[in-house]
Amino acid sequence: MEDETKIAILLFDNFTALDVVGLYEVLSKIPNSRIYFVSETVRAYKDSKGLQIIADSSFDSLPAADIIVLPGGFGIDAILNNSRVINWVKGVHAQSKWTVSVCSGALLLGAAGLLKDCTATTHWNRKEQLAQYCSNITDDRYVVDGKIITSAGVSAGIDMALYLLSLVTNETYAKVVQLGMEYDPQPPFNTGSPRTAPKELVDLIKNQRKINAAT
Amino acid sequence: MEDETKIAILLFDNFTALDVVGLYEVLSKIPNSRIYFVSETVRAYKDSKGLQIIADSSFDSLPAADIIVLPGGFGIDAILNNSRVINWVKGVHAQSKWTVSVCSGALLLGAAGLLKDCTATTHWNRKEQLAQYCSNITDDRYVVDGKIITSAGVSAGIDMALYLLSLVTNETYAKVVQLGMEYDPQPPFNTGSPRTAPKELVDLIKNQRKINAAT
Repeated sequence: MEDETKIAILLFDNFTALDVVGLYEVLSKIPNSRIYFVSETVRAYKDSKGLQIIADSSFDSLPAADIIVLPGGFGIDAILNNSRVINWVKGVHAQSKWTVSVCSGALLLGAAGLLKDCTATTHWNRKEQLAQYCSNITDDRYVVDGKIITSAGVSAGIDMALYLLSLVTNETYAKVVQLGMEYDPQPPFNTGSPRTAPKELVDLIKNQRKINAAT
Repeated sequence: MEDETKIAILLFDNFTALDVVGLYEVLSKIPNSRIYFVSETVRAYKDSKGLQIIADSSFDSLPAADIIVLPGGFGIDAILNNSRVINWVKGVHAQSKWTVSVCSGALLLGAAGLLKDCTATTHWNRKEQLAQYCSNITDDRYVVDGKIITSAGVSAGIDMALYLLSLVTNETYAKVVQLGMEYDPQPPFNTGSPRTAPKELVDLIKNQRKINAAT
């Protein structure tokens, strides 16, 4: 029997819940896999509105995994200079088969120096910030560069994870998983991207973020 | 100031994580709202692959809320005859402004007798089971009937929640939230529905479910 596929998902305070769970719902279907929720301390971590997910593993207890997942969220800025987090990211990436980020999780890859010669993406409103670490940022939903996959904001983790699932298993299996989760998206509005949303809505979020960053 | 909007999300063992979190990511953006994760006991609940979300409230401590959310998952069958769950659903529904289900969560509404004269939907592979409680089941992504909204499988909760958000707040606000979560879906495959997936993939899941149900 093949070895178990170990998947490590980073948690931190004020993570974005859907960054974690969209991808989780897909990757948890990898046969003979085990998912570890990893953080500095084994405890419950809260997103910004109070949902609590338990980290079952610490950095010390999980120094390596096959797939490393870095989600984003408003709390990301508070850990970009945390040497324990950055050292863990560097260490697990050195041994991973795949290292992936969702949304602003790409900033962690950047802060760890892993995006220097890489093509990458992130949440549309984090691109300026990511540019300090990465000179080739695209508008793609997700970008594969070697063993690093970065994805756009929040919900993009679902699309990226289905693609990654097809690489780790096979395309037919990924299609079955998509059918099982009835992922046949029908958003009620067409405002999911700055390409399609009215400029005033884009500006509203940009300004909000400036306010958040200033506090 | 207007009263806080109370949102109660039911948890149970073997819930589907994305049923909960897709919708949560959207509804948690309702201004002046608070989300309660409710179950029989205040403890962590595991989905089928080990993700643990903490239920912060018990049925006794939360007998009423403005929006009631019933997610689905493989664990739903084990609680359809649980009188404490069913009585809580009946009680909170009697006072709610909105009662919504994601995926097989509709079966709980059915078991509570709330879908008798209702048009509803559920996960495509749960429709036969739902038919024992509901005579008008549709293929829609989500269905609004009075104050009850039911949605299709797993990921459909995101679409439904954005629509509900537009009703509870306003359409512009819901559009901003969609942009913030970059919900511009680009699934890598076109197999998210039995309408579009090859028949052999549909049969594969149907047979799998029969196997699950038999064990």
